[in-house]
Amino acid sequence: MKLISGGVCAAKGFLANGIHCGIRKNKSKRDLSLIFSEKRAAAAAVYTTNLVKGAPLIVTKRHIADGYARAVICNSGNANTCNANGIEIAEQTSLYLSQALDISAEDVVVASTGVIGLPLEIEPIKTGIPSLVSGLSHDKSVEAAEGIMTTDTKVKEIAVSFDIGGKECKIGGIAKGSGMIHPNMATMLVFITTDCAISPEMLKKALSSDIETTFNMVSIDGDTSTNDMVTVLANGMAGNEEIISEGEAFGEFMKALNTVTVHLCRCIAADGEGATKLIECIVTGAADKKTAKTVAKSVICSSLTKAAMFGADANWGRVLCAIGYSGADVDVNKINVAFKSKKGEIPVCVNGSGIEFSEEKAKEILLEDEIEIKVNLQSGEYSSTAWGCDLTYEYVKINGDYRT
Amino acid sequence: MKLISGGVCAAKGFLANGIHCGIRKNKSKRDLSLIFSEKRAAAAAVYTTNLVKGAPLIVTKRHIADGYARAVICNSGNANTCNANGIEIAEQTSLYLSQALDISAEDVVVASTGVIGLPLEIEPIKTGIPSLVSGLSHDKSVEAAEGIMTTDTKVKEIAVSFDIGGKECKIGGIAKGSGMIHPNMATMLVFITTDCAISPEMLKKALSSDIETTFNMVSIDGDTSTNDMVTVLANGMAGNEEIISEGEAFGEFMKALNTVTVHLCRCIAADGEGATKLIECIVTGAADKKTAKTVAKSVICSSLTKAAMFGADANWGRVLCAIGYSGADVDVNKINVAFKSKKGEIPVCVNGSGIEFSEEKAKEILLEDEIEIKVNLQSGEYSSTAWGCDLTYEYVKINGDYRT
Repeated sequence: MKLISGGVCAAKGFLANGIHCGIRKNKSKRDLSLIFSEKRAAAAAVYTTNLVKGAPLIVTKRHIADGYARAVICNSGNANTCNANGIEIAEQTSLYLSQALDISAEDVVVASTGVIGLPLEIEPIKTGIPSLVSGLSHDKSVEAAEGIMTTDTKVKEIAVSFDIGGKECKIGGIAKGSGMIHPNMATMLVFITTDCAISPEMLKKALSSDIETTFNMVSIDGDTSTNDMVTVLANGMAGNEEIISEGEAFGEFMKALNTVTVHLCRCIAADGEGATKLIECIVTGAADKKTAKTVAKSVICSSLTKAAMFGADANWGRVLCAIGYSGADVDVNKINVAFKSKKGEIPVCVNGSGIEFSEEKAKEILLEDEIEIKVNLQSGEYSSTAWGCDLTYEYVKINGDYRT
Repeated sequence: MKLISGGVCAAKGFLANGIHCGIRKNKSKRDLSLIFSEKRAAAAAVYTTNLVKGAPLIVTKRHIADGYARAVICNSGNANTCNANGIEIAEQTSLYLSQALDISAEDVVVASTGVIGLPLEIEPIKTGIPSLVSGLSHDKSVEAAEGIMTTDTKVKEIAVSFDIGGKECKIGGIAKGSGMIHPNMATMLVFITTDCAISPEMLKKALSSDIETTFNMVSIDGDTSTNDMVTVLANGMAGNEEIISEGEAFGEFMKALNTVTVHLCRCIAADGEGATKLIECIVTGAADKKTAKTVAKSVICSSLTKAAMFGADANWGRVLCAIGYSGADVDVNKINVAFKSKKGEIPVCVNGSGIEFSEEKAKEILLEDEIEIKVNLQSGEYSSTAWGCDLTYEYVKINGDYRT
């Protein structure tokens, strides 16, 4: 497997574009993105578990019920959620796009992100679709990634190539992260494309299994969005023998998919709203998988731990506290905690009690922008990693007046 | 029932004091508090559900297992948690205090609040106890309240008088709130005293029932502390017939207790770390009690809603979002939301969809320092209230360098 460029356009037969169509007032910000596959592609998606669901998710779910799709359209600036006519708008969007692309409206995946509860006008979308489509290109993954950004400060994309039965396959993705990020079963907006030939059933299986240890282990602020969605389109143009069951080829595909998703998780966490640091909590020695995950996520979600990381303060008591209230069944007298970054590693708690350590060294380690909080429960063989970020003034600032 | 002054010293036979003994470096900050009852008192307590428990809680639980106590000692500046010798220190504290007061060590309630994982030295406590005891007075509730404060900016105390069978009874309390506040089954530090005669069993029953709708419905930052504790001492000196079962007198006692606890909840929420506003989420129309509570607490805990309140931004979509991911089984198409303060009330969402409203009026309402978020689920007769605060730059600042 190797890293390649091209994002969602890296895989054969995929084109993309991102434009400003007028949903946002700021004309320099793209607000409408499109990903298109030259061939009909197997499609799988996972969605938010929030009971309040964005209208586009409901329409998308219906559209890919048959396991296939050809295009993904996504606007930013408006979530199209909690609006009386939301479904209608999402369906009109699909219809206008399908006419412009000469495909079936049922093959369109629709997504939205932005303010909840503000009616979404169809006009700018309808007006924008012709130039969105005519500008489709094999090298506009970045434009598409820009079009789905809200308060994100960085484009999030990746692609890798891998080999299945002697055929080179490619897989790439883009993501929108930032705030209201605490995915559960599904996640923020992530669009992944691959030319690997894989059946809709196996694609669904791969995605559902992967997100359990990737996007579901990311939290920026504990708020599970109404519009979370991860989709994968697989158009089979790499020419490999279609993957229709588990086995070596499926394993290779899973590995490539996981490389893409873990990268995007790290990008999303590091670029969390207001974040100055990527925080990884790596839990080992758990008695079972669920315990490892629960502990890792609880630490990543703790406001106090996040604020301490912002201040480069080795306040490990807050880590212990977050483990204690996580609901996981752990022996608190066996917990070891260490902080690690590229400046080194420092143990701060052994068997549930503090040990002497150099505050100076700890500070040096925690001043870095990628921090590992290492927790060893010393009770078994299971492990888990969760990703998050620090809690900063900037997060409060961004969210104190998001709509204005 | 009427409001009276005196805090924990309002009830007959209770004395208090608070001094600086040297646990903290800042000599102007009291760090050791004492509440003493002239008569042995029925005692009840509830504790944190965090698996990591402060050593004082373990010792207190043992001491009041018989249902009685006479004194409460509490230090701030150090949580005495995750220290190898924590139990020993808490026991020594009880012992030295019991000798100075000439009572049994088993009648001492011990509590601590502050940094986790830093060994607590017995010396300043041992040295401080004589002046702590000699300074006991009927009018030092405020000093005791100050001695348990950490980042609290305001003293939190209240007292009321009420009537049972023709006898005037009094009940009063002090609290420590601020950060790491997200009680579950038990809570932050709250000490309540009453001269009402009530059996230990009924006192326990009253407290356990009351906290379900009071302290367990407060959240500052979603972090459940390791040292939460609420205790009530009832010394019977009001001379009423002892309450030994449910009935009218128990009902009167519950009402007075609830007045004290709701007031302290509001104080704790309004003075949350960095808070500029008290936020009350009042849920009505729920199909059952659990749903009402789950929804109210989810809204209060949402970082995005809290940040919007800081910015006086009527971003009600975040309220809907928090209801949607709460785990409660609600019909999202029936949810009404309104914001209210002393400047008026403004409906912003009806039947799950946004309605037109004056942003100007909403801003005026949300600029006040006590905000109600009113949620009507339109699905039944149950209701619930939760208390919290806004999320501010100051919260981040306080917690970015709490230890330094």
